[in-house]
Amino acid sequence: MIHVSIIGATGYTGVELVRLLGLREDVVLDHLTSRTYAGQKIQHLFPHLLGHIDHTCEELDLEQVTTDSDVIFVALPHGHALPIAKKAKEKGKKVIDLGADFRLKDAAVYEEWYKVAHTEPELLEEAVYGLPEWDRDAIKDATVIANPGCFVTSILLGLMPLMKKGWVVPNSIVCDSKSGTSGAGRAGNVANLFTEVESSFKAYGVAHHRHTPEIEQLLTQMAGTDTMIQFTPHLVPMSRGILSTIYATVKEKTTAAEIQSLFEEAYADEPFVQVLPAGMWPMTKSVKGTNNCQLGVTYDERTGRVIIVSVIDNLMKGAAGQAVQNMNLMFGLAETTGLQMIGLFP
Amino acid sequence: MIHVSIIGATGYTGVELVRLLGLREDVVLDHLTSRTYAGQKIQHLFPHLLGHIDHTCEELDLEQVTTDSDVIFVALPHGHALPIAKKAKEKGKKVIDLGADFRLKDAAVYEEWYKVAHTEPELLEEAVYGLPEWDRDAIKDATVIANPGCFVTSILLGLMPLMKKGWVVPNSIVCDSKSGTSGAGRAGNVANLFTEVESSFKAYGVAHHRHTPEIEQLLTQMAGTDTMIQFTPHLVPMSRGILSTIYATVKEKTTAAEIQSLFEEAYADEPFVQVLPAGMWPMTKSVKGTNNCQLGVTYDERTGRVIIVSVIDNLMKGAAGQAVQNMNLMFGLAETTGLQMIGLFP
Amino acid sequence: MIHVSIIGATGYTGVELVRLLGLREDVVLDHLTSRTYAGQKIQHLFPHLLGHIDHTCEELDLEQVTTDSDVIFVALPHGHALPIAKKAKEKGKKVIDLGADFRLKDAAVYEEWYKVAHTEPELLEEAVYGLPEWDRDAIKDATVIANPGCFVTSILLGLMPLMKKGWVVPNSIVCDSKSGTSGAGRAGNVANLFTEVESSFKAYGVAHHRHTPEIEQLLTQMAGTDTMIQFTPHLVPMSRGILSTIYATVKEKTTAAEIQSLFEEAYADEPFVQVLPAGMWPMTKSVKGTNNCQLGVTYDERTGRVIIVSVIDNLMKGAAGQAVQNMNLMFGLAETTGLQMIGLFP
Amino acid sequence: MIHVSIIGATGYTGVELVRLLGLREDVVLDHLTSRTYAGQKIQHLFPHLLGHIDHTCEELDLEQVTTDSDVIFVALPHGHALPIAKKAKEKGKKVIDLGADFRLKDAAVYEEWYKVAHTEPELLEEAVYGLPEWDRDAIKDATVIANPGCFVTSILLGLMPLMKKGWVVPNSIVCDSKSGTSGAGRAGNVANLFTEVESSFKAYGVAHHRHTPEIEQLLTQMAGTDTMIQFTPHLVPMSRGILSTIYATVKEKTTAAEIQSLFEEAYADEPFVQVLPAGMWPMTKSVKGTNNCQLGVTYDERTGRVIIVSVIDNLMKGAAGQAVQNMNLMFGLAETTGLQMIGLFP
Repeated sequence: MIHVSIIGATGYTGVELVRLLGLREDVVLDHLTSRTYAGQKIQHLFPHLLGHIDHTCEELDLEQVTTDSDVIFVALPHGHALPIAKKAKEKGKKVIDLGADFRLKDAAVYEEWYKVAHTEPELLEEAVYGLPEWDRDAIKDATVIANPGCFVTSILLGLMPLMKKGWVVPNSIVCDSKSGTSGAGRAGNVANLFTEVESSFKAYGVAHHRHTPEIEQLLTQMAGTDTMIQFTPHLVPMSRGILSTIYATVKEKTTAAEIQSLFEEAYADEPFVQVLPAGMWPMTKSVKGTNNCQLGVTYDERTGRVIIVSVIDNLMKGAAGQAVQNMNLMFGLAETTGLQMIGLFP
Repeated sequence: MIHVSIIGATGYTGVELVRLLGLREDVVLDHLTSRTYAGQKIQHLFPHLLGHIDHTCEELDLEQVTTDSDVIFVALPHGHALPIAKKAKEKGKKVIDLGADFRLKDAAVYEEWYKVAHTEPELLEEAVYGLPEWDRDAIKDATVIANPGCFVTSILLGLMPLMKKGWVVPNSIVCDSKSGTSGAGRAGNVANLFTEVESSFKAYGVAHHRHTPEIEQLLTQMAGTDTMIQFTPHLVPMSRGILSTIYATVKEKTTAAEIQSLFEEAYADEPFVQVLPAGMWPMTKSVKGTNNCQLGVTYDERTGRVIIVSVIDNLMKGAAGQAVQNMNLMFGLAETTGLQMIGLFP
Repeated sequence: MIHVSIIGATGYTGVELVRLLGLREDVVLDHLTSRTYAGQKIQHLFPHLLGHIDHTCEELDLEQVTTDSDVIFVALPHGHALPIAKKAKEKGKKVIDLGADFRLKDAAVYEEWYKVAHTEPELLEEAVYGLPEWDRDAIKDATVIANPGCFVTSILLGLMPLMKKGWVVPNSIVCDSKSGTSGAGRAGNVANLFTEVESSFKAYGVAHHRHTPEIEQLLTQMAGTDTMIQFTPHLVPMSRGILSTIYATVKEKTTAAEIQSLFEEAYADEPFVQVLPAGMWPMTKSVKGTNNCQLGVTYDERTGRVIIVSVIDNLMKGAAGQAVQNMNLMFGLAETTGLQMIGLFP
Repeated sequence: MIHVSIIGATGYTGVELVRLLGLREDVVLDHLTSRTYAGQKIQHLFPHLLGHIDHTCEELDLEQVTTDSDVIFVALPHGHALPIAKKAKEKGKKVIDLGADFRLKDAAVYEEWYKVAHTEPELLEEAVYGLPEWDRDAIKDATVIANPGCFVTSILLGLMPLMKKGWVVPNSIVCDSKSGTSGAGRAGNVANLFTEVESSFKAYGVAHHRHTPEIEQLLTQMAGTDTMIQFTPHLVPMSRGILSTIYATVKEKTTAAEIQSLFEEAYADEPFVQVLPAGMWPMTKSVKGTNNCQLGVTYDERTGRVIIVSVIDNLMKGAAGQAVQNMNLMFGLAETTGLQMIGLFP
């Protein structure tokens, strides 16, 4: 049995972890923490849990949590995972951070984009970036996982086969991403009210979104050469899902068929990445509630660009699902344990 | 292994059965039939099945289907289940009809409301109404199951404890029901376009909906006395979910606490019915993707009415989920097999 | 020129008043007040006003407002209109209160349901209930208007022809109402986030909603006999619109045709009420953005009930539109001035 | 009085023209044609017109229409406007084609992308492209107007100031556009059902959408040099609205402030184009129901790209609203006649 605690269980990412872990027979949920709702039954806050999860939300007791649990999922805003990971490391326990604290290898870049000091540079160095399709072996041995950002995951999986080949013209990449509103969290913000979001569409964080350096860091690793991107996130009137439309100019002429084959081969053995048949384009609804990433690709002979459309569920492959996939790897389980599910359609 | 075929696999109910049965290790999917899409891979029609279900849709070959399968799910409009059930019966196989052909015990009433002749009166007599919370023993021994209507299920579970007690004033019941649009099926109807439905709400079938006689038949059985209801369905701009608000005048004064206890006791052992704590009212989102029914109840001292709010997922407890629950019972499995899931929220 | 101020201009009702009055050539907008956003340009808060409305939001200066303006619209929570109406009265100015402070004629009832003391009983007595279809002559001479509640308007217009005839069995009325979420206001409440509301449906305030006594007060006046109702509000995943489904048992048998005629005649000369042809049922989308109320009616011979389905736009005929209609009447203008518009469809 | 007929009045674009023209005191609606609904009252098909528009839909009688009307709006699929324009020309009447028949100046390009022959090359030469912000003088004298495509309008208004200056690197432009579903028309297509579209997002027509040559034709005219673009449309779960995110590399370094000024000056006198203050980004909801285009712009110093976000209502500035703007110009009216309206929010 794997003993698990979830720090920040009443955010959308946290409660999605409860959905994924709460019924597993090989997992024990020890502690569900919530500063706002401590003392309340989580099934009364989230009635979809009624009859399944009887836990009461607790204040975080770091000593207790790291004593009881083998792995601690941190589903909190950036900055909060640092002391938790430090304590867990002391106790020999594992941490999966769903926030940004261990994603950027350069602490100075972290501090520039997130405006807080990074207090654990040694842990940062040790932390492993939790994208299994990129380096699952490193994940198996990790004690601290930096779970990738949601936009980031959709873009990295969309570009990885091209980057590894070195086919992309440096700095030609444009990533136009669209997200459902659960990515904005569960705070009572006027801008995220139903009335404001429904039947509307907008861009935000143009030219300045914090996921930019994370994407560039990984693409640079994949290509082996400095890579800069243009990234624009948008808000879609839907709860779940991210779709990224990615444009990349290639160095030499190619064909749509060659690109199709490249992607099909690259992901042939990946359980959670599906390349659609040529001519089909993915929609976010097809992956709702699942850990899947679906990709459509083509090459535009007129313009010399490869175009990739990538969809994930931002709370699953973009957060909680990928975190569980990482946990499975870290504990020597089959990677798909508890994640084999068909999406909810319609 | 239970061998299963789904007749009408490309409607919303049919493809939901595929979701529920396609990954079960104790079930083999033999045939998925579709008149419209025969010859096409179902995972290309429904990309949420990609990587999971490799079947090609077939024309219905009744001889073959009833030879190969132990149980046949019929997810077709009314009238179509009659010949299928007849053939299955001859071959000694079981049928679960998700349509209306075996729901009304009086063939004349069926013909009045559905405008077609009932050609199988003997099978009709033999068929068992598939509401496990009402009579699961009968279901265990059945060969033909009439799977209840979606609105009907939400209302029957909402009223059953009261009806059994005989507390309700005859003919005082008003059932005001609201459904997501997946209940309208997957035909290309202008009235069901996104543009027409989005951000709007309407009533339909006022005073004349076909579920009326089915509800009255069952309530009459439960109460042991003739019962007539007022039933109005409405269309909600959401894909899944039914909420029924039910008003019933009681013969003698009671209290909210007494009604709360009545319901809690009635459903204490039911795996798929949850009575919310007093003062909480259910929302459809809490049961999305699950086989659950959640109930909120109260008594209004001013008016002498009990008010019950009942929610289900119309494609699950209102159709495919309940059908699988019935299959589990018919084959001696644990009733919850393959149906233990936490809803998708948000 | 009519000089107008709007107190609480940055709520949904307030900003709807700005939409209706901001481009009128016979109206001058003096002051737009907002406690939260004082000092900010309203067109930057609400970019749909860009290029049209150049006002800066102000703190309320009651002396100034009542000096400058002929009529003051109060779009604030209950309790706040009392001192404003008092001051306006002193200055000989008119007030249209879109809140609840002057709706209930019995101050004790007001205090019971709203939990605050009513400090202006004389003004309360003088105030006129602003439902033009009920008593437009009284409105013409009023100085303080109690603008009706949104649910209330949809129900009163649905029942008025029946009540005036005295045909309804006392206490048989059930009002099952469904509202878009703009009715919940523009506060940053978690329960009203897009993620929580989207693709879901719920009931709230069952048996205890504050609009109940207001509805009963008016129905009692209309029928000339004490009338008690059952009222249940629900939340629809849409921004605008209310649909009320109203059930009323009639004392003597009637026919659908007779009911249809009763309604058509009752509203033949009303500019903002449309009775749909027999067999058609209204949807909220048809009145979006307009001051219209559309009604569908029938009589169910099986049950002896009249069923009325009534739709309005909650921010228009349910609030700002009706307020402007009242202003037109109070200032001797054509009642439809500035309100003649075709709804936005789709 | 201007006599007007609408050919194809029961599509979304046609019925939007009815909304805009039906209450104008300087316009007479002569004929509303519809092949599908001929003989039916348009207010029964579209109840938002109840009480306003009493017309019965007619089969198209081309002789009659061109005799009676001064201007004919054609809201039909491509190909159908050719004979109508020919006949109107003979009768000395004006035509505004909301389809594609007169948009592409090169008949061969039209035939390549639309797969039909162009039978009226002389009219094609004479036709004027109906984007007032580009060349309103030509529109004033035109007899045949090619009303621009919806995506096209959002992109041209977004790029025009840059193109006229000649600042853009040829072939660097990426246009990532997102549209509500009313753009897909009112046919009963399964892919456009509420259930399929709700809470989902997808790309379509990647690298091959028919608006591509139209955009390139106009950008080339504006810049005076051959221009090729990358254009990808997407479908948003909303009824109305288009947002285009446009990326263009500029030849020489610039600043966000310079770009902001360029746009503010370019559109200072345009009644329907609003440049948002620096740092604000538009959302589609702000222009819902209006003829406005709102723009947000910046320059990314890291990447050397200008980024423009442009929003319109696809049925208004993207179709019917712009058509009416063109009609106003053609008949010597104030350009904003009947189009001065504040958007519907929320």
